[in-house]
Amino acid sequence: MTSNQVDPRPGSVPLRRATSPDWLPLAIRNFDQVLIDHAHCEKKAAVHALSLLQAYPEVPTLPAQMARLAREESSHLSKVLKIIDERGLSLWPDRGDPYAQALMKKLRTGQLQRRLDRLLVAAIIEARSCERLGLLAEGLPDPGLRRVYEYFCRAEAGHQVLFLRLATRAGGEDSAFTRLSELVEAEAEILEQLGLRAAIH
Amino acid sequence: MTSNQVDPRPGSVPLRRATSPDWLPLAIRNFDQVLIDHAHCEKKAAVHALSLLQAYPEVPTLPAQMARLAREESSHLSKVLKIIDERGLSLWPDRGDPYAQALMKKLRTGQLQRRLDRLLVAAIIEARSCERLGLLAEGLPDPGLRRVYEYFCRAEAGHQVLFLRLATRAGGEDSAFTRLSELVEAEAEILEQLGLRAAIH
Repeated sequence: MTSNQVDPRPGSVPLRRATSPDWLPLAIRNFDQVLIDHAHCEKKAAVHALSLLQAYPEVPTLPAQMARLAREESSHLSKVLKIIDERGLSLWPDRGDPYAQALMKKLRTGQLQRRLDRLLVAAIIEARSCERLGLLAEGLPDPGLRRVYEYFCRAEAGHQVLFLRLATRAGGEDSAFTRLSELVEAEAEILEQLGLRAAIH
Repeated sequence: MTSNQVDPRPGSVPLRRATSPDWLPLAIRNFDQVLIDHAHCEKKAAVHALSLLQAYPEVPTLPAQMARLAREESSHLSKVLKIIDERGLSLWPDRGDPYAQALMKKLRTGQLQRRLDRLLVAAIIEARSCERLGLLAEGLPDPGLRRVYEYFCRAEAGHQVLFLRLATRAGGEDSAFTRLSELVEAEAEILEQLGLRAAIH
């Protein structure tokens, strides 16, 4: 995999651009910082699942799937907090996630378009998280941490498929894939503009 | 237990007034409505746990405990959604919880006072939920549902103890119990003002 190609798994988000090869060394050098950011990412993922349930109880199967997802993300949060504790660190306040915030600005405003976009953006964030957690799973020096990150990466891979399926169901396959194509383009530009950060995104 | 006495378990919130004996028949007659409200209560409890983690990462053990709590409340949400589905119902949008909203208005504004009050109000809401879920566990006609509600009630009983312990740790035992006494008084008045609703609170 080069920095300009991403090989998507079937049913997953075809990200337009792979993470720069400079990200992993930066993340490993600043792993404590990445860990704290990762905890906040899992927290936000759980909150986001519950907010989708709150916003779209009418989408078939969405409430049950978001409840399960919130449970899983909260469980990941517990695991990351345990690693933080074992390293003698403490959680510090959330400094925000400019990547997710920039993606949220791409949401259209019409009710059905916004619903479709929220599900697609969720799929894209899960896909990018999956890619980065996978890089940590391959590159971290500690074998125990590599195994934990392999587990996290597999989970995020399942989540992007779930969100893509919900988006297709909510918006129709044609609309969903046309819009996905625009949003992955926007995501690649956002990553480029933000530059590299010692953070999951 | 009469409508004016609550027998608190050790370490639990001494509620000032027990639920009116008229609530249970109302809740059983409108059980579908109570179920939907219950799902939204579990969702809000999970979101609230994560928002406490977001607000107070500095309180020792709070982040790990809130992550576990969010996982447990999300799991309860899944169980309630399953019952809703089995009864051929669908989740409808959250109509809000005037009881919790009225309690939130009692929060003081100073940073440390607000932190203490948020933890105490969380303990009180868990205590009232525990009492009401316990009434359903005793009174519902279906033995399967009685068992599920017995399980939910036991869980909420543990949560109120958790929040009281965190409040004592965050605010000191004397401050915490003095303020708890004021807040349970306020809670009894709020219940009185709101009247009976076919809802958990």
